[in-house]
Amino acid sequence: MAETIIPKATAKRLPLYYRYLNFLANSGTTKISSTELSEAVKVDSATIRRDFSYFGALGKRGYGYDVMDLIKFFKKILNQDRLTNVALVGVGNLGHALLNYNFRQANNIRISAAFDVDPKIAGTIQSGVPVYPMDELIEQLRVQQIEIVILTVPTDAAQAITNDLVVAGIKGIMNFTPLRISVPSYVRVQNVDLATELQTLIYFLQHYGPTLKETELDDDL
Amino acid sequence: MAETIIPKATAKRLPLYYRYLNFLANSGTTKISSTELSEAVKVDSATIRRDFSYFGALGKRGYGYDVMDLIKFFKKILNQDRLTNVALVGVGNLGHALLNYNFRQANNIRISAAFDVDPKIAGTIQSGVPVYPMDELIEQLRVQQIEIVILTVPTDAAQAITNDLVVAGIKGIMNFTPLRISVPSYVRVQNVDLATELQTLIYFLQHYGPTLKETELDDDL
Repeated sequence: MAETIIPKATAKRLPLYYRYLNFLANSGTTKISSTELSEAVKVDSATIRRDFSYFGALGKRGYGYDVMDLIKFFKKILNQDRLTNVALVGVGNLGHALLNYNFRQANNIRISAAFDVDPKIAGTIQSGVPVYPMDELIEQLRVQQIEIVILTVPTDAAQAITNDLVVAGIKGIMNFTPLRISVPSYVRVQNVDLATELQTLIYFLQHYGPTLKETELDDDL
Repeated sequence: MAETIIPKATAKRLPLYYRYLNFLANSGTTKISSTELSEAVKVDSATIRRDFSYFGALGKRGYGYDVMDLIKFFKKILNQDRLTNVALVGVGNLGHALLNYNFRQANNIRISAAFDVDPKIAGTIQSGVPVYPMDELIEQLRVQQIEIVILTVPTDAAQAITNDLVVAGIKGIMNFTPLRISVPSYVRVQNVDLATELQTLIYFLQHYGPTLKETELDDDL
């Protein structure tokens, strides 16, 4: 199947569209205009139309979009028809919160294994998820064929553990540590640096004041 | 003071540069080339040079950058010389984790007040932060002159609480709920949707495979 290369900003909005379309379907809405969708997801309608245009003709001019058609389409694009199992490494405060975070609600994702050094927590089940000791990391990731890891370990342990993840065959890491980890080019890293997010918000408030529209924020440069 | 409008992608990288420059200074490094900085922060050196160019001539050709000069400059730009107090609303699992999260380490930010509906937690001090009941939200935010809030409440309470935050004079909201909240145009919202971040990582892995360079990810469109 030929793939269209879409911008990251578009890819990031797809789960948002998918979630709202499900809300709409559950409330009995069968069709929607890009203007109505725009109002709900706070993305301007020109951006929505451009995002959708990457996937060909999804709507009819003057009619809008059929909600169920869009859901079916995004479900396939987002691989929602199959459960994605991920592992969490580091069950500290943030790790615990993520075990309780409902990734599955709109996204078909489940944390199916966790790992921690603490002998008090390793070998237990936390929020329904088994926690394995760190010395079983490589073996369990291989046995369970997990390819994606959420990394919530202390900064000074992050690189050594990342090296083990690479040995275990991990393909993607959602990195919550402030360290920019080194990985081979075939491993994808998504950095989620909460302090930086907050710092950016403060920076923009102090330098520019009010909100810019989403497109202006994400798409400039 | 005249302000240069810089792209959001650049603004997001400033705290990262600042943090690494502090690492470097602490380890005794006095000057650095954009290539060396690039290696450390995993941002290509052309992007670093372009980011720095928004702020005028920060380095000398063939010499590189003076680490202390850069730190002094970014400290001012990022308002690191003054503490920014923020409030956290919703002390559930994620809220608790954020109270323990070290926002202050490289960024001069402190959560100085928290709010929760639960009478068991309201009126206590959690991780050094006083937790007030929700009916004191507006008053305490005003008295403490807090302008930035981290929102970690259940989705179905998010909009009503946001309305109160607006009444209290809040200027910026870091929104961890999956809801796209409605605010007046003078309030800035930074959405941090963890499920979407994870979904985006999975999407890119399944559709494109390995990591693209940071510039390709953030700056296209």
